[in-house]
Amino acid sequence: MSRRVAIVGIGLTPFGKRSDASISELAFEAGREAIRDAGVDAKDIGFLAVGNAGGWSAEALPAVLISEYLGLDQPGSLRVEAACATGSAAIKVAYDAITSGSVDVAMALGVERMNESPTPTVVELIGRAGNYFWEFENFGLTFPGYYAIYATAYMDRYGAKEEDIAEVAVKNHYYGSMNPYAQFQKPVKLEEVMSSRYIAWPLKLLECSPITDGAAAAVLASEEVARKLTDSPVWIKGMGYATGTANLSKRADFLGLEPASRAAKAAYAQAGIDPSRPYKQIDVATVHDCFSIAEILAYEDLGFARRGEGYMLLKEHQTHIGGLIPVNLDGGLKSKGHPIGATGVGMAVEAVKQLRRKAERGRQADVKNGVALAHNVGGTGHYAYVTVYSID
Amino acid sequence: MSRRVAIVGIGLTPFGKRSDASISELAFEAGREAIRDAGVDAKDIGFLAVGNAGGWSAEALPAVLISEYLGLDQPGSLRVEAACATGSAAIKVAYDAITSGSVDVAMALGVERMNESPTPTVVELIGRAGNYFWEFENFGLTFPGYYAIYATAYMDRYGAKEEDIAEVAVKNHYYGSMNPYAQFQKPVKLEEVMSSRYIAWPLKLLECSPITDGAAAAVLASEEVARKLTDSPVWIKGMGYATGTANLSKRADFLGLEPASRAAKAAYAQAGIDPSRPYKQIDVATVHDCFSIAEILAYEDLGFARRGEGYMLLKEHQTHIGGLIPVNLDGGLKSKGHPIGATGVGMAVEAVKQLRRKAERGRQADVKNGVALAHNVGGTGHYAYVTVYSID
Repeated sequence: MSRRVAIVGIGLTPFGKRSDASISELAFEAGREAIRDAGVDAKDIGFLAVGNAGGWSAEALPAVLISEYLGLDQPGSLRVEAACATGSAAIKVAYDAITSGSVDVAMALGVERMNESPTPTVVELIGRAGNYFWEFENFGLTFPGYYAIYATAYMDRYGAKEEDIAEVAVKNHYYGSMNPYAQFQKPVKLEEVMSSRYIAWPLKLLECSPITDGAAAAVLASEEVARKLTDSPVWIKGMGYATGTANLSKRADFLGLEPASRAAKAAYAQAGIDPSRPYKQIDVATVHDCFSIAEILAYEDLGFARRGEGYMLLKEHQTHIGGLIPVNLDGGLKSKGHPIGATGVGMAVEAVKQLRRKAERGRQADVKNGVALAHNVGGTGHYAYVTVYSID
Repeated sequence: MSRRVAIVGIGLTPFGKRSDASISELAFEAGREAIRDAGVDAKDIGFLAVGNAGGWSAEALPAVLISEYLGLDQPGSLRVEAACATGSAAIKVAYDAITSGSVDVAMALGVERMNESPTPTVVELIGRAGNYFWEFENFGLTFPGYYAIYATAYMDRYGAKEEDIAEVAVKNHYYGSMNPYAQFQKPVKLEEVMSSRYIAWPLKLLECSPITDGAAAAVLASEEVARKLTDSPVWIKGMGYATGTANLSKRADFLGLEPASRAAKAAYAQAGIDPSRPYKQIDVATVHDCFSIAEILAYEDLGFARRGEGYMLLKEHQTHIGGLIPVNLDGGLKSKGHPIGATGVGMAVEAVKQLRRKAERGRQADVKNGVALAHNVGGTGHYAYVTVYSID
């Protein structure tokens, strides 16, 4: 039986265009807040896992610098990358450092400064996160195109309409408008989403997550230390992860991200969540809505809806507050932003905030069971991490 | 008490210029060999940690592709970077995945394809592994310059001569000449080293490790599984790691890499090695000789010699076979090559090979206690991993 691990401190920077801060300064903002929130001495942090995909930043190997900026006592540190699931991979590495018994307190810190490179360069670099050689180099696929394939397959198979999928953006901008840390803080109407220009049909500009700078941090502690630090630890109750083929031509269909289903099963089993009706136990979820369609696939991969019925959840406002299971009350990647390395750690920050009932007015879920979920995928869905957080 | 972990399988590609193979193919070569050597089914590998610093490769996010090439059963995977200690960081992550109890078998696979970019680009990218903003961007320091500072300080303080430091290259080329996996397989004379051109005074061309492509892999298993797989597991007996300031101006002196001393202390304590005379228990060591001077600093940081006396060990052939403690019998980074992500994993491969008494003729240490050590540093010495391997 592994040691229990809790998140005892969280920190977040505003997401957006952050030309005011270097990568180390961004990391400092979030990390310092997490240390203060945890009430630990920086010197007690025994390990630092930095989630940073990089490629667009001049500072290519930032882990030690970040440790130094934060005044840590020069513990072990490393940088982790798992494409857009980088932040969750950093949490896994910090979690393992504690469950293995090697340290009692560790930090997962995700940071990305994507605006350092021009947007076309960033889009090109992200494009390499698929199957680089065959799909990017030979066919020129970039991410809007990848997810457009999923959207067209889904519409074709289940009869969902462009409007149905576009509703994801409307919900997430609505909640993002109440999140002072979000990149976009204004609601958008369905008509605005529908009339925004096509990026890759049927996905339109307002259905794509933006290029974002930002950082997020979480301090993790063993049970013994967590109990001393706080009366309200948030336990990592289940952590499922899986990878799948990076090769589109080898996928059975484009109607779901298969590794996400496997990761969810593993996380539910570890956390004692009934996979046939997870929404009965989970109060609130964040899911990886890099594009609108991705959120709908996530509903189905996570068992929130049956196959082909995810878009109906949205129509019925079942993933709004008051519905079956509210999703992305922080605005999601769509409105909050998607600073790649920070995204997964930002989901942990949001889970803790919701379970502490400290989300801003209008976007706080009704927390009954004290359970939250984070779903973070990478590549074209070939990395998946699903984490279940619980107050007990 | 953590679970014990052993290396049960190793694989290595020839190091050198490998324009014949993609990054995934290189990884496949080493990974397949490690899987066969371990006698495991690829599908039993529960986690894959890929060590890859990247930056010079078009395939920027290779972890999942490598998993797929190797026929793994789509387990969790991620990429790890800790500058030139990347390979050891991958071993740490795979080790923690087992000691944490989350999986029984994991693979650490280091791979780098540095020749994909032109050499000046590679040297520039490596230069960013120091303190990028102040030292690289403002002062233009690259790695030969960094280590030249250490060499001049050492010569000034202890009276060592250029010839004394150059002897590292002579020893390592000598042993590399017997290693069919080494990039350079011919011995060099001291006069050749001395007459090679200066890269950064006092360091000459033949004192610098080369730009290298290559991969190395290790299959790690829990004690229970290891006992079933093999009669000759090699246990990870101690793993020490530390970071230090990346900022030269904050270092007390340039006469050692302080984090390496701390990492050694931690590894010795865990492994039950007497830090005052580690050479009494350790049969053979690999150390991070990215530049000749680095090997001499390593002797002192590891306690093989007193401060200022490391170069004398070499003079007396105490780090040759038959001496106090033989070092870098695989040729070291100097002659075997330094494919960054693969280097640390390659050290583990060498430790296992030596402890199995399977090193090639002329470069096999006399294994009495069954204990080997690997010393891998990153950045300008601000990352350090020291690992102790043992047959029991």
